[in-house]
Amino acid sequence: MNVEFVNPFITALTNVLKTMAQTELKAGKPKKKADAVARGDVSGLIGMVGPQVRGSFSLSFEAPLALAIMERMLGEQCTEINDDVTDMVGEITNMVTGGAKNDLSQKGYEFDMATPMVVSGKQHTITHKVDGPKIIMPFESDAGKAHLEICFENL
Amino acid sequence: MNVEFVNPFITALTNVLKTMAQTELKAGKPKKKADAVARGDVSGLIGMVGPQVRGSFSLSFEAPLALAIMERMLGEQCTEINDDVTDMVGEITNMVTGGAKNDLSQKGYEFDMATPMVVSGKQHTITHKVDGPKIIMPFESDAGKAHLEICFENL
Repeated sequence: MNVEFVNPFITALTNVLKTMAQTELKAGKPKKKADAVARGDVSGLIGMVGPQVRGSFSLSFEAPLALAIMERMLGEQCTEINDDVTDMVGEITNMVTGGAKNDLSQKGYEFDMATPMVVSGKQHTITHKVDGPKIIMPFESDAGKAHLEICFENL
Repeated sequence: MNVEFVNPFITALTNVLKTMAQTELKAGKPKKKADAVARGDVSGLIGMVGPQVRGSFSLSFEAPLALAIMERMLGEQCTEINDDVTDMVGEITNMVTGGAKNDLSQKGYEFDMATPMVVSGKQHTITHKVDGPKIIMPFESDAGKAHLEICFENL
């Protein structure tokens, strides 16, 4: 997988959280290893299908970070991952994927997005089952960690 | 959402588990309620995109059922949800969606499948974020429960 495919997702994620939730995400080192696992308490997942590629994208948050974004973005204080929080995570997942889609479209890579799903559950893991490389990207913030994972396979 | 969209997934799931893992799934009552939640220990998820529709599909298993399928299908005794089990759940998710896709294609509904993702984590929940109806279908078996959830929205 080309790094050209990954950067638009990273840029979209940091932009969305900065502008909508005044939260700075500091990118860590990307991991390519097959055994690296993204772990989180609430995650947004979305499938992508294009003429030449198909893949999947996930965005996992630790609970304290998800709750902080909720308060900063919507002014709503939540103490647990409720429906409002999963709605917000689904919306952020949509915005990030949509931003990356626009960016990649301008570079000649086209894909359509499926509808997002949100997983909630303490310390769950997500494994992307693709026949191709996967990239996990960790992020740090003042309120907790996030992980982005993205994979594409050629058709 | 038309019931025509749901039945092919139910048929494909019961067929796959019967033929590949000698496991009979007994379908319960479908739930349409917005607040119904599918809960499981390991789930396969897949996004779908077509010219007129897009949506998502998930298949959640209780851990004992997933481990029983693993043994019956591949002869492998596992005591926990490891990589082999998540591979199998991803494969079943692919087979079920692929079977439903063929069936729906013959009825004039076309969609492409994204790559599957597998979530692992005790009693996690999955929320499909679609602007349209969702159907949750519970199943009972000799080894534990499964839930199928499917949603489509019109573009």
